[in-house]
Amino acid sequence: MTRNTVDDDGLARLLAGAGSALSVGALDALIAGVVAAPQGVDDAAWMTLVAPDPGDALRAALGDRLDAAYAAFGDGAADRPPPAERLVELRAELARRELAGFVVPRADPHHSEDLPRGAERLAWLTGFSGSAGVAIVLAERAAVFVDGRYTLQVRSQVDGAAFEYRHLIDQPPHDWVARNLEPGDRLGYDPWLHTPDGLARYRAACKKAGAELAACDDNPIDAVWRDQPPPPLAPVVAHEPRFAGASAADKRALVAEALTEAGAGACVLSTPDSLAWLLNLRGGDVPYSPFPLGFVVADETGRVELFIDRRKLAPELGRHLGNDVAVRDPAELGDALDALAAAGKPVLADPSSTSAWVFDRVEAAGGEMLRAADPCALPKARKNRAELDGSRVAHRRDGASLTRFLCWFAETAPGGELTELDAAGHLDALRAENEHFRGLSFPTIAGAGPNGAIVHYHASAATNRRIEPGSLFLVDSGGQYLDATTDVTRTIAVGAPSDEQRRHFTAVLKGHIAIATTRFPAGTSGSQLDALARHALWQMGLDYDHGTGHGVGSYLGVHEGPQRISKAPNTVALEPGMIVSNEPGYYKTGAYGIRIENLVCVVEALDIEGAERPMLGFETLTRAPIDRNLIDAAQLTEAETAWLDAYHVDVREALTPLVDAETAAWLADVTRPLAEGS
Amino acid sequence: MTRNTVDDDGLARLLAGAGSALSVGALDALIAGVVAAPQGVDDAAWMTLVAPDPGDALRAALGDRLDAAYAAFGDGAADRPPPAERLVELRAELARRELAGFVVPRADPHHSEDLPRGAERLAWLTGFSGSAGVAIVLAERAAVFVDGRYTLQVRSQVDGAAFEYRHLIDQPPHDWVARNLEPGDRLGYDPWLHTPDGLARYRAACKKAGAELAACDDNPIDAVWRDQPPPPLAPVVAHEPRFAGASAADKRALVAEALTEAGAGACVLSTPDSLAWLLNLRGGDVPYSPFPLGFVVADETGRVELFIDRRKLAPELGRHLGNDVAVRDPAELGDALDALAAAGKPVLADPSSTSAWVFDRVEAAGGEMLRAADPCALPKARKNRAELDGSRVAHRRDGASLTRFLCWFAETAPGGELTELDAAGHLDALRAENEHFRGLSFPTIAGAGPNGAIVHYHASAATNRRIEPGSLFLVDSGGQYLDATTDVTRTIAVGAPSDEQRRHFTAVLKGHIAIATTRFPAGTSGSQLDALARHALWQMGLDYDHGTGHGVGSYLGVHEGPQRISKAPNTVALEPGMIVSNEPGYYKTGAYGIRIENLVCVVEALDIEGAERPMLGFETLTRAPIDRNLIDAAQLTEAETAWLDAYHVDVREALTPLVDAETAAWLADVTRPLAEGS
Repeated sequence: MTRNTVDDDGLARLLAGAGSALSVGALDALIAGVVAAPQGVDDAAWMTLVAPDPGDALRAALGDRLDAAYAAFGDGAADRPPPAERLVELRAELARRELAGFVVPRADPHHSEDLPRGAERLAWLTGFSGSAGVAIVLAERAAVFVDGRYTLQVRSQVDGAAFEYRHLIDQPPHDWVARNLEPGDRLGYDPWLHTPDGLARYRAACKKAGAELAACDDNPIDAVWRDQPPPPLAPVVAHEPRFAGASAADKRALVAEALTEAGAGACVLSTPDSLAWLLNLRGGDVPYSPFPLGFVVADETGRVELFIDRRKLAPELGRHLGNDVAVRDPAELGDALDALAAAGKPVLADPSSTSAWVFDRVEAAGGEMLRAADPCALPKARKNRAELDGSRVAHRRDGASLTRFLCWFAETAPGGELTELDAAGHLDALRAENEHFRGLSFPTIAGAGPNGAIVHYHASAATNRRIEPGSLFLVDSGGQYLDATTDVTRTIAVGAPSDEQRRHFTAVLKGHIAIATTRFPAGTSGSQLDALARHALWQMGLDYDHGTGHGVGSYLGVHEGPQRISKAPNTVALEPGMIVSNEPGYYKTGAYGIRIENLVCVVEALDIEGAERPMLGFETLTRAPIDRNLIDAAQLTEAETAWLDAYHVDVREALTPLVDAETAAWLADVTRPLAEGS
Repeated sequence: MTRNTVDDDGLARLLAGAGSALSVGALDALIAGVVAAPQGVDDAAWMTLVAPDPGDALRAALGDRLDAAYAAFGDGAADRPPPAERLVELRAELARRELAGFVVPRADPHHSEDLPRGAERLAWLTGFSGSAGVAIVLAERAAVFVDGRYTLQVRSQVDGAAFEYRHLIDQPPHDWVARNLEPGDRLGYDPWLHTPDGLARYRAACKKAGAELAACDDNPIDAVWRDQPPPPLAPVVAHEPRFAGASAADKRALVAEALTEAGAGACVLSTPDSLAWLLNLRGGDVPYSPFPLGFVVADETGRVELFIDRRKLAPELGRHLGNDVAVRDPAELGDALDALAAAGKPVLADPSSTSAWVFDRVEAAGGEMLRAADPCALPKARKNRAELDGSRVAHRRDGASLTRFLCWFAETAPGGELTELDAAGHLDALRAENEHFRGLSFPTIAGAGPNGAIVHYHASAATNRRIEPGSLFLVDSGGQYLDATTDVTRTIAVGAPSDEQRRHFTAVLKGHIAIATTRFPAGTSGSQLDALARHALWQMGLDYDHGTGHGVGSYLGVHEGPQRISKAPNTVALEPGMIVSNEPGYYKTGAYGIRIENLVCVVEALDIEGAERPMLGFETLTRAPIDRNLIDAAQLTEAETAWLDAYHVDVREALTPLVDAETAAWLADVTRPLAEGS
């Protein structure tokens, strides 16, 4: 595309003309931050950060400037080891600092799942791009630690001559540290990238080796990463009341009450979903989740200090935030913590999601830290009526897109020419047409045949597979909408499935139905329910190596705590309004993967005759047909069959008005009662 | 009964003649210890502690002396508040020690469930005889804290004018402490009666109040409890290899290996079941469990120091213990800990079952404590082949006794004259006839009608109820045998049950069968399985407020860790050989209680075609019929009915050879296939 180019003087004039306070230099700095954020659905939204109403000429000039910046930025880490000089330069930097080694976790100061580009230090250094891992660099040796999901990937991305490959769980980094450090060694770490819980084991390992764990004031990698992207600057906007369902003032009052009850004067919130929820803000600093990065200090009176780069606040946001929210520079967080310490009341922070830096700073200033759960976590998890209504509506839109895709797939796939990337691309495009669509909630997983058995598979040009007749196709996808976050998995038979595939699919379905239909007493946690989803598989000697359900945000993270349904012990009770996924699966390595995932929300079960206790159950939110061709009806009980048939009636009634005639006809066919056969 | 009496001189001559080293004074001290222990099945066994072969004359004289001691001892706490002077005298003692208050837990230095008489300080002071509770005595106020099981009982046993009644969980003692102490107050505690885990909350509460938590060198109650029984002296004997299945030397080697792996030089074992298991010893110092009280220090070389009163060691026990086990006086434990501290290697102890005194002593001597699970716990829980074979055989004997009882009950109860105490007495007498019987494993629970709904009910003269036609009768009982510990519950309809009773019983049975038949992958914990037992009840809006299963020892405690099946999170995997109870229930307050309990052991499930993982399941050990009259066959699936019918065939085949003809005929009738109707 050709654009007019404007020189710096012309640009300065355009800026001034639009009433922007920015110089050209400041604009370039802003653009560097915009480029450091993922691209959103509206690629001109950032321009309101330059001027509330830029006008056409300035818009064009800004677009050019952004394109140029993107072009210079390049495409990030490719799928091969990075230049070996990086490790050499880091070691030289460590030597300058008299450090025997340095810990490189995949983390940023906000401890959520997705990182901004400039925080991808592990990927920059090692090439490893997985979602969890850590490297440790010593003068003579270095190792990269990843879990079972990534044992193959790490070998293709990381140079084995530079880094030993280790298993994150079975050969944990702290053991390696204890064995490889010498007495007197200093092992450096960035206190912004570790929680106190996480550091304790490194500290013990250093002690064992007679070494010392040393906090670095600034990260040595940043000193050698020359083109490190700056912090991202995606526009921060208000989350509308009709979607949020509760005012930020009410939420601040709730947190204030929790602080008073805990005997704390204030709390520090580091996770962007807590920030976003508390202040009814949304942003775009990381991929797939509408998170604005920043820090919050909320106090027992309901007042809040928001530490965030002002440049990314949308116009008029001050009015939304109101008088009780003070916006401060992130660099001032330390001073604010010193002031809290001096005020004398304990400062609450969640030790599982707050950097050690915060604890160290408050305690060094003589303050007392109160280690407790993030006070936003539970109220955020309990969706209010507006959020639940929004989710129901959004799930119909989202289900209609998926059903249009499934209809198209049923017609197209048997031809045998379709690839995983084709399929994912088509689905993503359909979803993007939806009202309130703001992006995908995670990269679409489209796994054909054996790729479906790789639980965290993402198709790439290198792995892209044709979808073959006789195979199973697993598609796990979701969207971010202003009114909800979705996440749904369907497994589809391409052509006639084998008896074994039907037997396995039906066992997974039985687990899915067990969760969908169970009633349980108030106070029950998700880990208590997990076995219900696995029971049918267990009786066949099968299982799956992932959780049964994760919490899901409301136009927030697709993975959200504190509730979950999993084998791992969890004492958080499921409460009305909580949304979780219901996604049992089965994976036959080298052959196929099966997963059936709906989102469900916890509801009161008021209809049980003779009930003696307050009982809860699940309402299924997701609307999309489940492949009848893969069901062995003989394996289902009457009650299970009744659930499936009723679910299909719901799906048909909800989606028929939202899809084209061809899809509607297909949907009517695939949602017939099970007794009617294929 | 009349006996010859012998004067002290005559007794001295008899002692000398039998080769006893005891003086008459020492004999009386020994007898005081024997009286402080519960009476065992062999009331003359203690005499071997006087002389290996006392001879008839000395036996008679010893019997007289014991009877006289029992007569002087009285019957312990009656079911009413103790004299108010006790509290007055304790407060005077606290004032003398400049203590503002004192914590009185129900605990002894061994932190197991049953206490020796002299450790029942809570009962002595308050009158409360339940299995869990704590009192706190301040100068002006005092409170007793009990959980939901005991809210009625505490009111009948404890004087409300002297003690406030509080709920142990909802109104915890540390909160009360924080509210009621004044700045500068010193709250005393006995460091032998608290674990470090338990103390932390008292310490925080004192800090909150500006007060101090002060360890007492000796317990202030002991200073005012004039007739406090001395430590018990029940004979300690070897547990025969044919029952133990593994030598003490092998077990010591196992523990030594665990210590080496943990990097510890030694461990301190306080719980009597670990002591008994490790050294293949059994004793009788507390009711219902064959526990010898003492302490063990085991080291990384396999050597053991056993801190125990030598007077209670049976003759020849030295040979059983061997050269690697040194017997030392319990008073020398402190010196031994000092020596461990000086040796420099970490000392392992389980912070959930070891007194704070041990941790304090080692740390005061400059040693390092390693807080970790008792290294005996898991190997003790994994029963070996001899223990499992013993359990299978013992369960047939035990089931035969219970079945004889059930036959007698079926004939007798409809008359309407039988009481709970009659029934329990008859069952206990039948069980006592068995080979290898060493006592009950807990007081028999016999609950008629509404008493069956009181989960921890024990019939007394005051509560004893007639068993009425139309009611349900719940009987939970078990035995200690040389080859096993048993625990079984049956619920029986007296006359024709109501539809509701059948519906509830069948829901409980479905839960019982779900556990009995489930398969699960290796690595699964009991808390993951718990919901399977509750699922049928949950769907009816019902539940039960106790765990589904507890571990059971092998001629050891009827409650044993670390595995259990319960709602409470527990990460201990179920492993082959572990024995747990399977005891779902349902309780309708004021009407009836239902519980169906069998013991099961974890076994490998090798028979699953197509299994992809190592799978486990349960083998049911208990043999006794389940009341067919209470089953609504229409509620059961085909698979559930098949399990019940097959179980009844097993029961019939196992027990018919062991019971009288009348019982055999009755058993044949009540174990017919369900399809044949009542």
